[in-house]
Amino acid sequence: MHVVTVALGKRSYEIRIGAGLLRNLGSACAAVGLRGRCVVITDRIVAPLYAEPACAALRRAGFDPVVIVVPSGEKAKALKTVEICYHRLAAARLERQSFVVALGGGVVGDLAGFVAATYLRGIPFVQVPTTLLAQVDSSVGGKVGVNLPAGKNLVGAFHQPRLVLCDLETMDSLPEREYRSGLAEVIKYGVIYDASFFGSLERNMPGIALKNRRALTEVVARCCEIKAEVVSQDETESGLRAILNFGHTVGHALEAISRYGKYLHGEAISIGMVAASHLSCRHLKLPSDDSERIARLLDLAGLPTQVQLKPSEKRLLTKAMQLDKKVSGGEVKFVLARRIGAVEFGQKVPLSTVTSVLDWSAPAEF
Amino acid sequence: MHVVTVALGKRSYEIRIGAGLLRNLGSACAAVGLRGRCVVITDRIVAPLYAEPACAALRRAGFDPVVIVVPSGEKAKALKTVEICYHRLAAARLERQSFVVALGGGVVGDLAGFVAATYLRGIPFVQVPTTLLAQVDSSVGGKVGVNLPAGKNLVGAFHQPRLVLCDLETMDSLPEREYRSGLAEVIKYGVIYDASFFGSLERNMPGIALKNRRALTEVVARCCEIKAEVVSQDETESGLRAILNFGHTVGHALEAISRYGKYLHGEAISIGMVAASHLSCRHLKLPSDDSERIARLLDLAGLPTQVQLKPSEKRLLTKAMQLDKKVSGGEVKFVLARRIGAVEFGQKVPLSTVTSVLDWSAPAEF
Repeated sequence: MHVVTVALGKRSYEIRIGAGLLRNLGSACAAVGLRGRCVVITDRIVAPLYAEPACAALRRAGFDPVVIVVPSGEKAKALKTVEICYHRLAAARLERQSFVVALGGGVVGDLAGFVAATYLRGIPFVQVPTTLLAQVDSSVGGKVGVNLPAGKNLVGAFHQPRLVLCDLETMDSLPEREYRSGLAEVIKYGVIYDASFFGSLERNMPGIALKNRRALTEVVARCCEIKAEVVSQDETESGLRAILNFGHTVGHALEAISRYGKYLHGEAISIGMVAASHLSCRHLKLPSDDSERIARLLDLAGLPTQVQLKPSEKRLLTKAMQLDKKVSGGEVKFVLARRIGAVEFGQKVPLSTVTSVLDWSAPAEF
Repeated sequence: MHVVTVALGKRSYEIRIGAGLLRNLGSACAAVGLRGRCVVITDRIVAPLYAEPACAALRRAGFDPVVIVVPSGEKAKALKTVEICYHRLAAARLERQSFVVALGGGVVGDLAGFVAATYLRGIPFVQVPTTLLAQVDSSVGGKVGVNLPAGKNLVGAFHQPRLVLCDLETMDSLPEREYRSGLAEVIKYGVIYDASFFGSLERNMPGIALKNRRALTEVVARCCEIKAEVVSQDETESGLRAILNFGHTVGHALEAISRYGKYLHGEAISIGMVAASHLSCRHLKLPSDDSERIARLLDLAGLPTQVQLKPSEKRLLTKAMQLDKKVSGGEVKFVLARRIGAVEFGQKVPLSTVTSVLDWSAPAEF
């Protein structure tokens, strides 16, 4: 088992990475001082696979879990679902000492985390991410929230989990497309923070894509380390933490205009990273060789790197980007790369430039 | 102008108390570093009185305020209203640097504060309380939130305002009953923290009840000072801050079972304080003379001190108390008084004792 610590003073916590950790969920919760009632929030896809093992593990440690099953997919990450959870928590008589276990992918983690952040003004929660995307990204760092029709993650909070358990056995049940979607964030860590990690991903992608357990352990652990380092330095995104959003400005907008239906998060981010790379070539003189390596590695991971947009869709995309939280003073701020392993945040880019880079039907542009 | 500072490190802020402060709202916001777009959240009763003066003051300082008018009363403090506000904030393109002004009573402050706490994971907000209750209590300390059908304030956050402006001129438009409701919290501060303040309230209640400006200034300032001292020592209610809940366990439950319709908050708290006094006589040997002084002062302020409950209502009340956030391990924790000016929190009281004290139809009990 790998252990990565997210150092945040009194709110510090461990990310544990290994195979079979779900079986020790209860004892792990007890060991970090959790007690009292608990609620497991999970979705319709994950519940039949892991709800019972999770509850059994909690029961073995003396807890009496109540399970809340929400619909699966990004559309469940909505205020309506939050409200349903609140009512269930009230019915289960959760108290300030009680806790929430988020069992599932990023949607469940963000949703359950927001419920925990706001119920009784904040109760503890534990992340048990069951997708690669959630293990390497959303379960770590305390960003929780839900979407509004107007945009992704517009409502939320910073609420750190007490513990993150990444059970690699849960990858076995993860659909291929979901798994690849997670690889987009994995590749992102190489681009924003660690050129040598990026190089190892280029070499090992075939094995990683096949979920080779050993390669996967290293990958998840390294991604969590990077995220933990960044979050420890800037918990509430007043600066450095913004680098984690590389590819996300365009990616989020793509998800929004397709109403969170067409693209998986990682797929949208993959396209967003390619767009950000092109912007980086123009604005920060990212070598075109680096830009090509990024697109090639995403492609090798089976991720989309292009999008065809109608003029009406492009207008919607521009509008969606303006609603993004990274907007300040009406200008869109991007995270751009100087080279693989080194990015800069807060790069102001005129909307017209963004639009022209998104002119995928005219590849001669690049 | 009186200034009281709430000392919370980087989150410290000033409460300014005086007549006519609303006219300087904009310059005061600018002076604490706020900039960008802003939204004024207010209700249907306050809007016709103060929305335009508030917006004019903001415009004079270069802001471009958007006004959101929500229904008035406790029923507006609901998730549905929060959702409407989110949509309006998105439509107004609020950004992370933008801010929310809460212009109104406790309901508006709690609601607008929760919206600010959770929109874009938290944006700044300014409290402009226009009721006595909000000026002396809810606008200070950062507790924000909304009710669920299952109980009051079950959803919320800790989110400190950047500034609190208590304009005493707004008391002139406050209905008599609302004003008296605020006096319940004023009297509470005497009971929990300051016997000499309690004594001065006994002497000056006639003038205070007539909204004598000078007496009122002293009262609001002293209440804010006490609240600021308590909150500075225990921001997130892990201990001392609980004393502010004197009278609130029974009070909240009364509000809940009457569906936030029959009693104003202060009226329910007044009855709750009398109940807590009786429990204090039994459990902490509060002298019966002190208990009588508390009931007499509440009565002098024109507040209810008794309630007649049917057996079915008593059962509902017991159930509502069990849902309260102050419940731990299934036991109800009370704040009880040892004497006027000195209370103790975390006093476990069996539910049966609470019920018997609530047997108002049998005054021989006391």
